[in-house]
Amino acid sequence: MRIARVSKAGRIGLAAKVDGEIRVVWDSELADLDAKIAEGSLAAAGKAAADGEVVDEALLNFLPPVTRPSKIVCMGLNYRDHAEESGFDIPDFPVLFGRFPSSLMGHGAPIILPKISRQLDWEAELAVVLSKGGKNISEADALDHVAGYSVFNDASLRDYQMRTPQWTAGKNFDDTGAFGPWLVTPDEVPAGASGLKIECRVNGNVMQSSNTGNLIFTVANTIHLLSTFMTLEPGDVLVMGTPGGVGVARDPQVWMKAGDICEVEIEGIGLLSNRVVAE
Amino acid sequence: MRIARVSKAGRIGLAAKVDGEIRVVWDSELADLDAKIAEGSLAAAGKAAADGEVVDEALLNFLPPVTRPSKIVCMGLNYRDHAEESGFDIPDFPVLFGRFPSSLMGHGAPIILPKISRQLDWEAELAVVLSKGGKNISEADALDHVAGYSVFNDASLRDYQMRTPQWTAGKNFDDTGAFGPWLVTPDEVPAGASGLKIECRVNGNVMQSSNTGNLIFTVANTIHLLSTFMTLEPGDVLVMGTPGGVGVARDPQVWMKAGDICEVEIEGIGLLSNRVVAE
Repeated sequence: MRIARVSKAGRIGLAAKVDGEIRVVWDSELADLDAKIAEGSLAAAGKAAADGEVVDEALLNFLPPVTRPSKIVCMGLNYRDHAEESGFDIPDFPVLFGRFPSSLMGHGAPIILPKISRQLDWEAELAVVLSKGGKNISEADALDHVAGYSVFNDASLRDYQMRTPQWTAGKNFDDTGAFGPWLVTPDEVPAGASGLKIECRVNGNVMQSSNTGNLIFTVANTIHLLSTFMTLEPGDVLVMGTPGGVGVARDPQVWMKAGDICEVEIEGIGLLSNRVVAE
Repeated sequence: MRIARVSKAGRIGLAAKVDGEIRVVWDSELADLDAKIAEGSLAAAGKAAADGEVVDEALLNFLPPVTRPSKIVCMGLNYRDHAEESGFDIPDFPVLFGRFPSSLMGHGAPIILPKISRQLDWEAELAVVLSKGGKNISEADALDHVAGYSVFNDASLRDYQMRTPQWTAGKNFDDTGAFGPWLVTPDEVPAGASGLKIECRVNGNVMQSSNTGNLIFTVANTIHLLSTFMTLEPGDVLVMGTPGGVGVARDPQVWMKAGDICEVEIEGIGLLSNRVVAE
């Protein structure tokens, strides 16, 4: 099942991709995936959407799959080549920071290049949305807690990220957390969404190219480790970290500028495309 | 106005402190301060609570003033003596990390000493709950966005905090973010809750003693600076950082252990007391 929250002319709906077509039911309650996940009725919602009207994808605005998770837990340095290019040790425990929901936007929406920073960088990432919460979840059971996978661009303002010992500010600018378009249920991809090609392209040039099989902390391992110290909740989002090839680590450094098109694609999950627009 | 979310025998209510007495209306909707703040009806809720029945404080359980803010933005190194004892430079921009709501609990609830860490430390802090959100809020207007002030114990597991370059894990253990008991409206305290004595005591021994006038980034300045890059929302919580005197910086280091009573008190705002209980 592949579903997405969409809007068109002020209406919000739930879309399902069925046999290459997009079908939409225009019902904002049905499209409230935070609520559907909390109620355990995500599968029913997706099934309902699959009976909707066929809509041309070009007419749709895509919204983030969830918008008010209790946690957006982002991981840093979770690919060896990115840890190395960033000058950090390979972590022996997940390196975590929080994103707040105010930073999220959907596929097709602009990434905003703010007036107060020019150091806008891309980060292609796998996103995981949890179906069930829990504490002390074993690694063996962890993937039973996944509602679905999606694509994330953890766009970062590097000067703000590095301005203090904690990265939070540079990771929380408005309109920098691109998320979507599709939430893809686990049955559609390999276990833990592992072994999938992940790529970032800016104006068609490949800037990052790796495979989710290179994650240091896998999805199952991460769910297990997070749950050793905090209670996970339905709808929580895990953003799994980015591979090597970011702009800040290049020589010379490369920043995104107004007009750039930044695409993040994960094999079998989706293509997330956003244009950079100056504030 | 001083209000608190309370429970007793499974009922949830909103309490108001009036002339030294605690009055409670047992109505979980009235006590939903996240919703009341979002609706702009906090003052009306407090007024309703003030007409409630008189209840002996000893019979009440206190809950965190809000439980599902879209952001809990914590500040590190925001008192000069704490930055120095921690071996960090004095910051020129707020040092930020996120807490997730799963870590919160109220006055009187146990701080849990987890099985997987022994390095449980205290941090006395001023908490700020926002009434109004916004972007690019001027410092002059910032205090108009404050719903109220409260007390926070940002209890930290130092080994997990320092295990990776980001502090998030050690700041997000379940039952470590003690918050409350009272949400005190701005009219009850000096502007920005500045100039108030802040103290942490463990088993009656004073471990931290400072004044909110020593904040490097004041409440108004912090609201302004955060809003330069992210949209603040009603109900968001800012946790303003801790003064010098934490256990990790002592020689020898001091950790909280099961049975300890940790009190954080801010003059004119309240006394937050929690017992440490082993997992």
